[in-house]
Amino acid sequence: MSDTPFYLIDEARLRENMRKIERLRERSGAKALLALKCFATWSAFDIMKPYMDGTTSSSLFELHLGREKFGKETHAYSVAWADHEIDEAIGYADKIIFNSLSQLDRFGDKAAHIERGLRLNPRFSTSGFDLADPARPFSRLGEWDAERLEAAMDRISGVMIHYNCENADFALFDHQLSRIEAEFGDILKRLKWVSLGGGIHFTGDDYPLDALADRLKKFSEDFDVQVYLEPGEASITQTASLEVTVLDILDNGKKIAIVDSSIEAHMLDLLIYRETAKLPQQGEFEYQIAGKTCLAGDIFGEARFDKPLEIGDRISIADAAGYTMVKKNWFNGVAMPAIAIRRENGNIDRIRDFTYEDYRASLS
Amino acid sequence: MSDTPFYLIDEARLRENMRKIERLRERSGAKALLALKCFATWSAFDIMKPYMDGTTSSSLFELHLGREKFGKETHAYSVAWADHEIDEAIGYADKIIFNSLSQLDRFGDKAAHIERGLRLNPRFSTSGFDLADPARPFSRLGEWDAERLEAAMDRISGVMIHYNCENADFALFDHQLSRIEAEFGDILKRLKWVSLGGGIHFTGDDYPLDALADRLKKFSEDFDVQVYLEPGEASITQTASLEVTVLDILDNGKKIAIVDSSIEAHMLDLLIYRETAKLPQQGEFEYQIAGKTCLAGDIFGEARFDKPLEIGDRISIADAAGYTMVKKNWFNGVAMPAIAIRRENGNIDRIRDFTYEDYRASLS
Repeated sequence: MSDTPFYLIDEARLRENMRKIERLRERSGAKALLALKCFATWSAFDIMKPYMDGTTSSSLFELHLGREKFGKETHAYSVAWADHEIDEAIGYADKIIFNSLSQLDRFGDKAAHIERGLRLNPRFSTSGFDLADPARPFSRLGEWDAERLEAAMDRISGVMIHYNCENADFALFDHQLSRIEAEFGDILKRLKWVSLGGGIHFTGDDYPLDALADRLKKFSEDFDVQVYLEPGEASITQTASLEVTVLDILDNGKKIAIVDSSIEAHMLDLLIYRETAKLPQQGEFEYQIAGKTCLAGDIFGEARFDKPLEIGDRISIADAAGYTMVKKNWFNGVAMPAIAIRRENGNIDRIRDFTYEDYRASLS
Repeated sequence: MSDTPFYLIDEARLRENMRKIERLRERSGAKALLALKCFATWSAFDIMKPYMDGTTSSSLFELHLGREKFGKETHAYSVAWADHEIDEAIGYADKIIFNSLSQLDRFGDKAAHIERGLRLNPRFSTSGFDLADPARPFSRLGEWDAERLEAAMDRISGVMIHYNCENADFALFDHQLSRIEAEFGDILKRLKWVSLGGGIHFTGDDYPLDALADRLKKFSEDFDVQVYLEPGEASITQTASLEVTVLDILDNGKKIAIVDSSIEAHMLDLLIYRETAKLPQQGEFEYQIAGKTCLAGDIFGEARFDKPLEIGDRISIADAAGYTMVKKNWFNGVAMPAIAIRRENGNIDRIRDFTYEDYRASLS
């Protein structure tokens, strides 16, 4: 078995993000829940638990995992619960957030003994991708009509508003939160808690964390609500790499290094959003870094190195924690990256290897 | 546990495709290998084996599966073999096809006791998607330079030329094969076998199967080579559905039915290629059929029904065998579709269920 490919989570960097989350929580009074849809590698949860309040989920299985492996406060959200899921879901959840009034109507009574909420869609967002924009036309994500929201008010104690998407701009966040205050303030005042969802890149290097904390605190005080944030990418940004090895080097008018991985199988969002991996950019020797699947466009991107690449060289693809491991798949039967953690003392713990038997069992 | 979602493979329809493959093989003399990258649900292999000559692969794991579960003739191809894979690969393979001259140089001696081949890239294709076009600029898929091909000739007995992509047009196939004859005929004459890859939609309803067979036979005779085809989609087109259940119905200016599945998790190519699922289109009641993940664009497409949909209704999404099960993933922790086969006597055998424990074990 080869050493590579593997996802390598860096405990020290993860703890840096966690300390920023802790600082934001302390200064703002907001609670922070890990969004499992982005990152659910539960062997890292012990590192994260001391700094976060719990998890939020987008399905029964994520909810179950959050309850079992993270504990603390456990929020349950799903775009649609099935009849056969609801009893189990309520058994794990501290709060359950329904996506629609009809879901609240259908399941609200069963959940009356825990906190219930509704997803509120403000009809604007910071998304640059139509694909990922919760405010896109005819969005199915949440309720916005005043009459329908009013019809829920006697049953809910809070709302979840997820409208930030990769938003690194505090001024924009401030502006949009003011819009929410203006448009939905009358409703918010009658609630006990408001989740502002995920997508705020507040762990980024230059983010004005204290300004965000103060703004959240003011929002919380003005409306007398407990604020929740649901950091996914912000929790784990810059904390992992995908480690790969060069298998072949071609020159078809351009130097191409083929590595033992694949964007479609191991970093799927690069393919879906037509983006480029974060690759080494220092040096005069240029290569296109390509995956090993049959897909012609299985290309991580362009990279630069200090010296010519050779077969067997290791390449580290940065920022590989978010929306990677949760979406990895067996396309082309490419060997699945192992999962490892670099501890703060420098030791690398290899947590999970995937085998041929795992591949075979993924089908039947 | 719910009945849905599940992939439902129809044995009778699969056998119809197999009979077309058998007819093509008999009339043309070509051999047909199942392309596992498209479909590797091995519980269906017993249905397929009598009609096909074996399998071809795009990785060590697919190769292993082909040898273990399908048997017969087993072709090994990979865009790049790793040093630690090659001995095992040669142990499974009847033929090994290298993607580049450098891979042949590196591993050719080890494989000298089995048939060796090289991927030839003719620098044209029928692909309508740049992403999937093996002839795109700087393609890493195969060799085309005359000098480099010549350097391989003393070591190889055949070539694989994969350039058809969803090609349902026999005239275009004929035209492009003539180009290959003209441009590479001198090389082909000195070989024992030529694989023309996959992508020819010869099992489609109106495809001139006999004309294809005759054309392949002539090619085979003119160059004195054994022809191989590698049908993936053609083997399993129209033979399976994805069965889902309506969980919620919304009206946000458009009627939307949310089902217990997801394009990203269960029919990934719809998302990658921005395509629409094959949904019911009979009746006056229109709905957008949407998945249950957090992705705003998790939309199967528009459908029509004879009567209004209700929560709990079953919807069958057609043509769900190719590039679906091989790419399914745990995005959002959405319950993974089971795999079932509808036997020719009408019985449905549920072959494989996926559980929470499978989800948890996909991470660590």
